[in-house]
Amino acid sequence: MRNVYLDHAATTPLLPEVREAMLPYLGDAFGNPSCLHEWGEAPRNAVETAREQVARLVGGKPEEIIFTGNGSESNNFAVKGVALANQSKGKHIVVSAIEHFSVLHSTQTLEKWGFEVSQVPVDKYGVVDPDDVRKALRKDTVLISVMHANGEVGTLEPIKDIARVAKENNIPFHTDAIASTGNVPVNVQDLGVDALSLAGNQFYGPKGIGALWLRKGMRILPLLDGGIQEGGRRAGTENVPAIVGLGKAAEMALKEMEARVKLLTSLRDRLLKELPAKLDHVVVTGHPANRLPGHTSFCVEFIEGEGMLMLLNARGIGVSSGSACTSRALKASHVLIAMGMSHEIAQGSILLSFGIENTGEDVDYVLTEFPPIVNRLRQMSPVYAKFIKEQRS
Amino acid sequence: MRNVYLDHAATTPLLPEVREAMLPYLGDAFGNPSCLHEWGEAPRNAVETAREQVARLVGGKPEEIIFTGNGSESNNFAVKGVALANQSKGKHIVVSAIEHFSVLHSTQTLEKWGFEVSQVPVDKYGVVDPDDVRKALRKDTVLISVMHANGEVGTLEPIKDIARVAKENNIPFHTDAIASTGNVPVNVQDLGVDALSLAGNQFYGPKGIGALWLRKGMRILPLLDGGIQEGGRRAGTENVPAIVGLGKAAEMALKEMEARVKLLTSLRDRLLKELPAKLDHVVVTGHPANRLPGHTSFCVEFIEGEGMLMLLNARGIGVSSGSACTSRALKASHVLIAMGMSHEIAQGSILLSFGIENTGEDVDYVLTEFPPIVNRLRQMSPVYAKFIKEQRS
Repeated sequence: MRNVYLDHAATTPLLPEVREAMLPYLGDAFGNPSCLHEWGEAPRNAVETAREQVARLVGGKPEEIIFTGNGSESNNFAVKGVALANQSKGKHIVVSAIEHFSVLHSTQTLEKWGFEVSQVPVDKYGVVDPDDVRKALRKDTVLISVMHANGEVGTLEPIKDIARVAKENNIPFHTDAIASTGNVPVNVQDLGVDALSLAGNQFYGPKGIGALWLRKGMRILPLLDGGIQEGGRRAGTENVPAIVGLGKAAEMALKEMEARVKLLTSLRDRLLKELPAKLDHVVVTGHPANRLPGHTSFCVEFIEGEGMLMLLNARGIGVSSGSACTSRALKASHVLIAMGMSHEIAQGSILLSFGIENTGEDVDYVLTEFPPIVNRLRQMSPVYAKFIKEQRS
Repeated sequence: MRNVYLDHAATTPLLPEVREAMLPYLGDAFGNPSCLHEWGEAPRNAVETAREQVARLVGGKPEEIIFTGNGSESNNFAVKGVALANQSKGKHIVVSAIEHFSVLHSTQTLEKWGFEVSQVPVDKYGVVDPDDVRKALRKDTVLISVMHANGEVGTLEPIKDIARVAKENNIPFHTDAIASTGNVPVNVQDLGVDALSLAGNQFYGPKGIGALWLRKGMRILPLLDGGIQEGGRRAGTENVPAIVGLGKAAEMALKEMEARVKLLTSLRDRLLKELPAKLDHVVVTGHPANRLPGHTSFCVEFIEGEGMLMLLNARGIGVSSGSACTSRALKASHVLIAMGMSHEIAQGSILLSFGIENTGEDVDYVLTEFPPIVNRLRQMSPVYAKFIKEQRS
């Protein structure tokens, strides 16, 4: 039996180069970067090198990078921090309906503090229409937050066009680029955004580290008050090994971007095309073409995602039935519901996300193993039995 | 020349056992603990084992441990989270004047949201009088936060007595035990607190990881909204390697506590006694006896802490002139000022903190190297020249 990890949307393995880069900072170079003696020097320099590497990956300046504890913190920081810093101008926020919960639940917290939130809809592919963003704007809108790519359905959003709307109306625009950064070219100047979230464990870097790129001059309130680390914008002793790992992962992503995108796109396109051809009642979720390389997602009718996940796991294949962050909540995905899916069909959601260690043989293996599992589950499904009966009569 | 690291208050090196425990989770066991397939299983179990280890260290239950990104986050979470969760009852908070900035600046943020904050004074040793806490209470007080030990001057606070005051008045009591946990016995039942902050890098565990112990039933609002990790109280993919490292460090601290305290106390007491005997105009800061083992701090008159730090560094000795978190802010310490020191004397602050890898020879080396450095700096000091002139006349 093969072991095929196809859940890179949940987290990626560490590149060996990333691990190697981290190890000295788990050893002799353990010092606190804020310290003025020589034990602080190598860690301090390493943090600043990583800041340059991350800035280069997104096309920003090093001083615009603020390291955080993970992608969710970056999103909380951006949404709450920018909204609160601008609340004298207004208390209205515009987001898309398919944002990650670290954005959506942050806006719920802001609602408790008197903010109002407009959720912009998406089409059946999960795409936001920039005109809908424009229509949602009010005189008191102080923040727009729309994700660059959706981690559940892979769809890439028209961020440039939304940024144009934001700019015309002089409203700060944050994009959650956690699923995309390091996996597709991301350039903050090109995108035209004011703030961008990213996370290490989404592109072969470490867990426990994220960053917020924040355009120079943008106002933000800290989420973590205390010491003067990160220019007074995020307190706490710097997580040096993880920061170094994130920097190395950024450097590697930039260097290998073209080759990675090419490999992943080819694996993705084969599975997107061939899996539905082998099974009835399977629909691709998310945009068929304009999606993250390596990202495939489907809804398989009449059965539940969880069942497929478990049986695939028993065959050595690791996949997800939705966002890892909510996998234990057992609710229908808010993303699929916003895309117009029924609760019934949304329950059959399955997500297979490739990484750079995957091969064409992995696709072969999935194409061999997956259909019998679906058929087996359908044979046990009363909903399927009812459907077949109705078909025949 | 020896290399003597005496800045364990800023951060500690990683124990080899801690690093070894972490490595698998930077390798094959890279999975996301929230994932339901087999790649999630080992990381998930490792996180829960670490939770038990940390709970055991502080005498709490595993489900009462919430992992955070560092000690500052734990303090922000406790202070803001508990205050905001209880704001319907009142908007008044009591803290000591010598809290870490992650507590003090969190209360400043709460002030912007309508809270009022009373700062309780300390005596010349930095000790809080529980009666002062009692006097500061109001009908609308919803949180007391007093640190277990001060990282700058080493003083241990009478937490049990303050907890009694809190309990009598039915007010949630948080203690910042970041400097003390893992270094002295800490037991939440014995202390009688409701919330306790700790951090990995203060007791030979990793950076980028902290925890908040929160008594079962205590209400708190999340600081990081999003996924349902940590029982819905702290969103973000778990930092598995760092959590595992924290757990191992907790296990080691509990096992070696007695021996560590004994070693560090002996090194500390020798330096506290012998350094002032070798130099005029040197005062020990903090409590002379009731202080963290391994923690020594002084004010050396007529010169600046920074100068001593730099010259000691040139002789291979790493020390600090105050809190690492503010070392680059170049302000007189709020802790020393609260203890009644003049700004002039507070500028000569120096902090030498031992760790378990230090030896008696390290003390010998400091006792040899330190006095000539002080004398050299004093010879260049116009303040000292003026003092000597006045003495002679």
